[in-house]
Amino acid sequence: MTVEGRPPLPPPARTVFFVSDGTGITAETFGHAVLSQFEMRFRQIRIPFIDTLDKARDAARRINEVYASDNQRPIVFSTLVKHDLSGVIRASHGMHMDLFQTFVAPLEMELGVKSTHTIGRIHNVVDSEEYKNRIEAINFSLAHDDGQSHKNLAEADVILVGVSRSGKTPTSLYLAMQYGIKAANYPLIPDDFERGKLPSSLPPFKHKLFGLTIAPERLAQIREERRAGSKYASILNCRYEVAEAEMMMKREGIRWLSSTTKSIEEIATTVLQEIKPDRREF
Amino acid sequence: MTVEGRPPLPPPARTVFFVSDGTGITAETFGHAVLSQFEMRFRQIRIPFIDTLDKARDAARRINEVYASDNQRPIVFSTLVKHDLSGVIRASHGMHMDLFQTFVAPLEMELGVKSTHTIGRIHNVVDSEEYKNRIEAINFSLAHDDGQSHKNLAEADVILVGVSRSGKTPTSLYLAMQYGIKAANYPLIPDDFERGKLPSSLPPFKHKLFGLTIAPERLAQIREERRAGSKYASILNCRYEVAEAEMMMKREGIRWLSSTTKSIEEIATTVLQEIKPDRREF
Repeated sequence: MTVEGRPPLPPPARTVFFVSDGTGITAETFGHAVLSQFEMRFRQIRIPFIDTLDKARDAARRINEVYASDNQRPIVFSTLVKHDLSGVIRASHGMHMDLFQTFVAPLEMELGVKSTHTIGRIHNVVDSEEYKNRIEAINFSLAHDDGQSHKNLAEADVILVGVSRSGKTPTSLYLAMQYGIKAANYPLIPDDFERGKLPSSLPPFKHKLFGLTIAPERLAQIREERRAGSKYASILNCRYEVAEAEMMMKREGIRWLSSTTKSIEEIATTVLQEIKPDRREF
Repeated sequence: MTVEGRPPLPPPARTVFFVSDGTGITAETFGHAVLSQFEMRFRQIRIPFIDTLDKARDAARRINEVYASDNQRPIVFSTLVKHDLSGVIRASHGMHMDLFQTFVAPLEMELGVKSTHTIGRIHNVVDSEEYKNRIEAINFSLAHDDGQSHKNLAEADVILVGVSRSGKTPTSLYLAMQYGIKAANYPLIPDDFERGKLPSSLPPFKHKLFGLTIAPERLAQIREERRAGSKYASILNCRYEVAEAEMMMKREGIRWLSSTTKSIEEIATTVLQEIKPDRREF
């Protein structure tokens, strides 16, 4: 069935495989970045956890089947550490782009050491400090979502503030999940604007505050999807709240950014630049 | 200060830069994967949002400064789409690994089309269906964390079940954030075991249930960190809960996996394989 008056989308021009000895998340991130440079649609097939020769042979068979049925080479993005596994894949009828084969050898030369050829160091990840910090940060951010808890705010790496639906919650969770940042978030609500003061638990942590604002039109649109026809979602109310919130942040000297056209990844990265530049080493 | 009896860690052998015209998340994912093959420590510097010649020149200057002070070339992982920007970076004294320069040209040949050289297509992401789905999935997963809500379970892509602290919450959030999967989660608690039945809102959605289990020793360790000395954290109780939960899942025909040694990325990827193989296209 097609939408009337609109031609049906053409079928995807090419099939793309993401083949990995681990989750395939790196292979997908890598492949998506490269493919995003092309104005084409791709059929995507993810083949994770290829860590034995048998599984690699199965994956190669699937690639060859697509080659036969599409009548053209599928694109294969892979992150396979072991030479024997990547060899099996490379022998199939695909156009092969392997992150490790491409970059590890030159880096061995540069560093003057051999690589370990270890499958997904991520396998040992659960016992690492970094992983534990991430899980702890997720728990912290969840417990401190939407001003739910005033406890342990001293532990927070950052406290996001802004009007309801300005993007605080997904940004907090992303900061925790991706970077292990303990991100609390507090809504700025009409009560705060009437009192003309920040929520009472925040002033002691002013150096950790970071504000999110948003264009009133965009905010009204987002709120409308949640509570259609409400005063909460009305453009007049959204204009009032945003103006008051920005005035308060200015008065209190809180750094802020507008989330209107930014993805949570972009907001999180900007916040990170502000609060913790270059802190990580591994 | 060093821990007694343990030699201090040597300083990181090399400096690594992640340079990007966008958030740098792809550059970091790419670089971390490659660096993880080396048993060395690296000092990491992230330089995101390099989208003008001036910013590129600043970044090149920082790379050259490190070259001078480290007395060796820093490693530079970059994802710069525009040739003029990547040219400025490549002219600096680093060892350069650029994802686009390496892979886009061969792909242009293979596909017979020119790439768009568009900086971070992610900039238009906020208006895309995929992005909206991710945000909606995050909201859904949050609202349906830990059995908080029985509403709209029909909308869930998956419902994770398992004893408290088996990894349901971070997995649900990761599925939502990374894949736009609406993942609810329900704890299995002693009340359920005594009744010998699944929580009452779940049976209609049995085909969407996916179980997480965990080794009792590991569970006791995790719970101990949260409620030291409690019955809840005791190894006897953990053994009881895990045995009952596994029995229940077996009896009800629920697929499950053990989260004991798996990262949330690995659990999420496995769940995804089970519930939605190959569903995404872009």
